[in-house]
Amino acid sequence: MPEMNHQILLVSRPTGPARAENFRLAAVPLPALAEGEVRVRNHFLSLDPYMRGRMNDARSYAPPQALGEVMQGGTVGVVVESRNQAWQPGDKVLGMFGWQEYGISDGTGMRKVDDTRVPLSAYLGAVGMPGVTAWYGLNRICTPRAGETVAVSAASGAVGSVAGQLAKRHGCRAIGIAGGAQKCRYVVEDLGFDACVDYKLGKLDAELDAAAPDGIDAYFDNVGGGVLDAVMQRMNAHGRIAVCGAIAGYDGAPLVMANPRLILISRLKMEGFIISEHMAEWPAALQELGELVAAGELRFRESIALGLASAPEAFLGLLQGRNFGKQLVKLV
Amino acid sequence: MPEMNHQILLVSRPTGPARAENFRLAAVPLPALAEGEVRVRNHFLSLDPYMRGRMNDARSYAPPQALGEVMQGGTVGVVVESRNQAWQPGDKVLGMFGWQEYGISDGTGMRKVDDTRVPLSAYLGAVGMPGVTAWYGLNRICTPRAGETVAVSAASGAVGSVAGQLAKRHGCRAIGIAGGAQKCRYVVEDLGFDACVDYKLGKLDAELDAAAPDGIDAYFDNVGGGVLDAVMQRMNAHGRIAVCGAIAGYDGAPLVMANPRLILISRLKMEGFIISEHMAEWPAALQELGELVAAGELRFRESIALGLASAPEAFLGLLQGRNFGKQLVKLV
Repeated sequence: MPEMNHQILLVSRPTGPARAENFRLAAVPLPALAEGEVRVRNHFLSLDPYMRGRMNDARSYAPPQALGEVMQGGTVGVVVESRNQAWQPGDKVLGMFGWQEYGISDGTGMRKVDDTRVPLSAYLGAVGMPGVTAWYGLNRICTPRAGETVAVSAASGAVGSVAGQLAKRHGCRAIGIAGGAQKCRYVVEDLGFDACVDYKLGKLDAELDAAAPDGIDAYFDNVGGGVLDAVMQRMNAHGRIAVCGAIAGYDGAPLVMANPRLILISRLKMEGFIISEHMAEWPAALQELGELVAAGELRFRESIALGLASAPEAFLGLLQGRNFGKQLVKLV
Repeated sequence: MPEMNHQILLVSRPTGPARAENFRLAAVPLPALAEGEVRVRNHFLSLDPYMRGRMNDARSYAPPQALGEVMQGGTVGVVVESRNQAWQPGDKVLGMFGWQEYGISDGTGMRKVDDTRVPLSAYLGAVGMPGVTAWYGLNRICTPRAGETVAVSAASGAVGSVAGQLAKRHGCRAIGIAGGAQKCRYVVEDLGFDACVDYKLGKLDAELDAAAPDGIDAYFDNVGGGVLDAVMQRMNAHGRIAVCGAIAGYDGAPLVMANPRLILISRLKMEGFIISEHMAEWPAALQELGELVAAGELRFRESIALGLASAPEAFLGLLQGRNFGKQLVKLV
């Protein structure tokens, strides 16, 4: 066994965009396990946009990340040492051990996972929190019906890619919105969306008109801001908007909504949600997503940064859309 | 019988605020009835904020009001001449005869009403479209639970006054928002709201904090704009917002929403609705509202302008909040 654990701590809060100096890499000795405890070697760390919100000391749906402590986050790994009969060395586990190489738990917050048919890393993506987020927002808020048009922003990302593929399985026309020709090509050619709009071309209105000639019935929103405004203009009567993320406003002043009267004019329903508040839905969603991934019917892509020290830059890149698919950090 | 009918026509569309010159009073001869037709002498005309939207030639939930034609609107009156066996002179009827003294119909769009326990004019207010609007938005979107705090804007108006009183009947704390001390006093003392915030005092944030110390769980929004922004800041997690009107933006450029990220942060549900799209709900709502009014358990107030010629000024006053309670025009 190595004697040191490496961790990334939040050491300051951003004013404006998050920066690398908000984080610090630390090395700490591995403590001995107490009776009932388990040590996990984390193999992958998940990087997710919600982490940016927790870096602020502001009212939000989750308490802020404490300063001087290990950044929180989901992980998958392997039990390497156990003083708990329920867990054996070699067990593959999902946990919330944060931005560090090793974690300790008495089993709380840990779940065994089977990586024989689903890759271990997928439990942080399509068969994990992002996948369930897509499943819930699409099925419970967007409530897609066959023949409808469903738009998805951040369509090549961990959540959006699943939302759009599920919409297709409901018999909908799926319209992706993503940044850059490469991502858009992937969204259409690999994920099977019907069209994808590259918001970086600066022709969002015209491209949305072309991609959604019959208007948009449901929108799975991961970004907010001007993309939300443009989609709202094209929502059909009784459209549904699942508000899953607002990454466009994470780094600065709140972005306004250009024309909230459209909520009335088009009789829209908008609903924000946080997937951790809907735990009762997880088992069925994970079951479905796991089967789809195992059968090769749900595709996903990963951006993998190598080594814990690369996590801050990978995270800042995620906030700027430089990732392509689910952003992970490989820790072994 | 008189030989002339007086009507108010829309003769131009507003650019900016609506103005008296957008309307014109016309006198036309009363046509003879065809077989199957009924003539109604309108006693009251309803003036409603939605009419402002129809004056524009813009995409909205209803087609625009045609130029050169009688302004549309709800009316109550009495059958004065009938060539239709289903209708007798003396029948009290609700109809959509618009801004004119007499209307003709084959019965389509007409409904007999009983004015022995409910005043005839109330069928244009608490026991009519505004009342059903309040009932639907409150029960189906705000979904109030006992002990929650429900805020209502335009609280002394035809819709808001009903919404708040129904919220009280659900065991909620009802917070009104209205313009001026007189209206606020009425909202609390006569309608029984727990508190009322006078937005004209310019201390909306502080007054809302005082009126809703535990935050706001549901908001029945008739106005949009800055009042909506202020209420959104105080919504509790999983709050519901029924978007019924956006009178603040009727006259000019669309008003922005200051901080749409709150939809995500507070996991809000916002839903716009148009009561004419929920006809299946009307009978039960009207039944309940009629019984409450007849029993004296649902109070309302009317602003009554005298004579058809006064309708344009009364309507412009309504758009500026100069009315107090349901705005009607008495036509006889």
